[in-house]
Amino acid sequence: MEFLINELIQKKREKTIAFLQRLIREDSTRGNESNAQAIIIEKCRKLGLQLDIFDIDHDCVKHHPFYSCDRENFSGNPNVVATLKGYGQNGRSILLNSHIDVVPTGNEKEWTMASPFSGERKNGKVYGRGTSDMKGGTVSLLLALEVIKELPVTLLGDCVFQSVIEEESGGTGTLSCLLNGYTADAAIIPEPTNMKIFPKQQGSMWFRLTVNGKGAHGGTRYNGKNAILLSRKVIDSLLLLEQIRNNRIVDPLYESVNIPIPINIGRIIGGDWPSSVPDKVIIEGRYGVAPEESMEDAQRELQQLISRLNDAEDWFNQHPIELEWFGGKWQSSTLSLDHPILSVLKQQVKEVSGKEAILEASPWGTDGGILSKGGDIPVVIFGPGETSLAHQANEWILEESIFSHCEIIVRTILEWCGYVKKE
Amino acid sequence: MEFLINELIQKKREKTIAFLQRLIREDSTRGNESNAQAIIIEKCRKLGLQLDIFDIDHDCVKHHPFYSCDRENFSGNPNVVATLKGYGQNGRSILLNSHIDVVPTGNEKEWTMASPFSGERKNGKVYGRGTSDMKGGTVSLLLALEVIKELPVTLLGDCVFQSVIEEESGGTGTLSCLLNGYTADAAIIPEPTNMKIFPKQQGSMWFRLTVNGKGAHGGTRYNGKNAILLSRKVIDSLLLLEQIRNNRIVDPLYESVNIPIPINIGRIIGGDWPSSVPDKVIIEGRYGVAPEESMEDAQRELQQLISRLNDAEDWFNQHPIELEWFGGKWQSSTLSLDHPILSVLKQQVKEVSGKEAILEASPWGTDGGILSKGGDIPVVIFGPGETSLAHQANEWILEESIFSHCEIIVRTILEWCGYVKKE
Repeated sequence: MEFLINELIQKKREKTIAFLQRLIREDSTRGNESNAQAIIIEKCRKLGLQLDIFDIDHDCVKHHPFYSCDRENFSGNPNVVATLKGYGQNGRSILLNSHIDVVPTGNEKEWTMASPFSGERKNGKVYGRGTSDMKGGTVSLLLALEVIKELPVTLLGDCVFQSVIEEESGGTGTLSCLLNGYTADAAIIPEPTNMKIFPKQQGSMWFRLTVNGKGAHGGTRYNGKNAILLSRKVIDSLLLLEQIRNNRIVDPLYESVNIPIPINIGRIIGGDWPSSVPDKVIIEGRYGVAPEESMEDAQRELQQLISRLNDAEDWFNQHPIELEWFGGKWQSSTLSLDHPILSVLKQQVKEVSGKEAILEASPWGTDGGILSKGGDIPVVIFGPGETSLAHQANEWILEESIFSHCEIIVRTILEWCGYVKKE
Repeated sequence: MEFLINELIQKKREKTIAFLQRLIREDSTRGNESNAQAIIIEKCRKLGLQLDIFDIDHDCVKHHPFYSCDRENFSGNPNVVATLKGYGQNGRSILLNSHIDVVPTGNEKEWTMASPFSGERKNGKVYGRGTSDMKGGTVSLLLALEVIKELPVTLLGDCVFQSVIEEESGGTGTLSCLLNGYTADAAIIPEPTNMKIFPKQQGSMWFRLTVNGKGAHGGTRYNGKNAILLSRKVIDSLLLLEQIRNNRIVDPLYESVNIPIPINIGRIIGGDWPSSVPDKVIIEGRYGVAPEESMEDAQRELQQLISRLNDAEDWFNQHPIELEWFGGKWQSSTLSLDHPILSVLKQQVKEVSGKEAILEASPWGTDGGILSKGGDIPVVIFGPGETSLAHQANEWILEESIFSHCEIIVRTILEWCGYVKKE
């Protein structure tokens, strides 16, 4: 059987890469997920999977405690759930969850190829926004389902594939699947882990700080209070808080991670005229949450920092820095290290790659937090993409890693769900 | 005669303030100058002035060495020139130049009144964007012309009033008037000087710095290079350069000015996603130029600073900070302290206010640089507005100062242009 799996995958290499390129060429940034989902749907139909295509029902999700989203209209950009039904009641079910949305390209000048959506192929790699995060993972999952369909076996447990929207903005896509009743005995999410296994995931939230200054003519700037200059102090304090929070992390799964729970300063905008002193700066960023930390405790710590700044300085006392939590919120997640899905996955990694599996804690939140904390589903993150390339210019994925990942996934599904020979 | 001037002004107080309020209520930020100019035109027509209303001819101005403008379309937002013709050839002519454009309001939350364009009147002040910079000055000039028309005299020299657009963005309005042939033996610009006389004016230019980083996922921010964090170093260097440049200023006209030639950091924008490491930050600002300094020397100094930063650091060496000069460029200007227009003006200030005139160097560039360097017209800046309120929230002007200013202007015009009794 192992030989047949490998052979099937090898035969499908070229078609699989072409399929990935098609997916990359559809810019599926937020609000534009429709075309890429159409490609997924077409593929699932051809595989004969049982399809459920649905727009997120805002009225349904918005009351859930994990809901955090600043988008109101999901219409025309559906979630896709495709199920390969298992045979009978004896098998364990598995959920394969992947997101179709990609983050913006950033400064396009930083990209060396024709376009961030060109899907260029070079030296065994495919380039483009979303290759590693995470259309490469999606393609591996769909190839795995295709291979399983062609094997002379029938799964015992259900295998549920999900291609969701909104992961990059807080997970409303996956939350909506959960509320529609989709669950399983275990879940795998192929976010870019460099083929490492992430049983623990960092949570995260978005914050917005408003730093208030006082306008003036630039020629008499001493009559104003420059909010851009003031914001340097706020940024320094954020960096200090990051250090304090990370010094507390002793989990060995974070041993080789440079900054386990970073505070990322992602956006800044301030002022509206070169010759005026800016009276307002807005800073937005991402605040990492440790796997075992509560979202509330994490929030409180930043709130306290800002309060201290506002108390300590006369200017801020009169013109307080404002803190908001907005948009995305990703729950952290922890899987017990002796959970059987981990043993199965570790075993298959070892058999396919010939090396011991590496376990780490994830440097980012994923939709796994929603599945785990919201749906009590054991979740493990394991994917073929390059962790360091997510959200970066010139993102790429190694073609070979997609095929190794797929082989491990097929074998894990068979082992986990169980199977019988086809009659 | 002096008594009659004062009496006429006092009689027109209420109507003048109502006129200023009408002007303030027209938001004349860049591109929206049309409605405010319509009010000016109506007033000039009623005064029986000789009117010239013209759109800036882009093809005509764009080749001038002082042209610096990023606006292509001026259509429908005209310059207005209104002339009170002098009687015969013996008088000296005078140019009264005022700009109708105002800068954006900044953070509207900082304004305590209903709207920055409400034109609210309270405790002897009128509030609103443009009251001090410089519709209050414009109103004083028009009141002066109205009073002169009602005096039993005829001016000998021409009195040319200009209401121009684009002053806040580099002076293309005034440049266009100059190229259309308008000149005079002296010019007064009522920018907000607190009734001080500014014979020297600081020049200024806009600069744009692009700081290049490297994108990454915020959760692995150590894999990127945060352009917002990098930009702190650039801002620090700008502040240092400001110190160095200002330490050189020994002109006694700058004695009471906190920072004679400031470097104002006016805008910052960077990053496009809270969870991504920003790979680019753009900083825009205003670079002050000393009255006797050449624009080229001033530019070279900032260029050298950026080159040194790019040389000194490995990252900037590989990813250089980029410097552009864009948009506005205001020529500096110097008037000899023994020029007769200064003597006349100083004398009238003393007679009307009872105090010696205060001379200072201006903390900003004005259209005076174009008139002086481009048209060889002796220019003095003298206006009723509050210097410290230009470009600031809750901008206001003291009603009383408009009327004192007007009285000084009327007397200066009579003295400068000469007059004969009406027959």
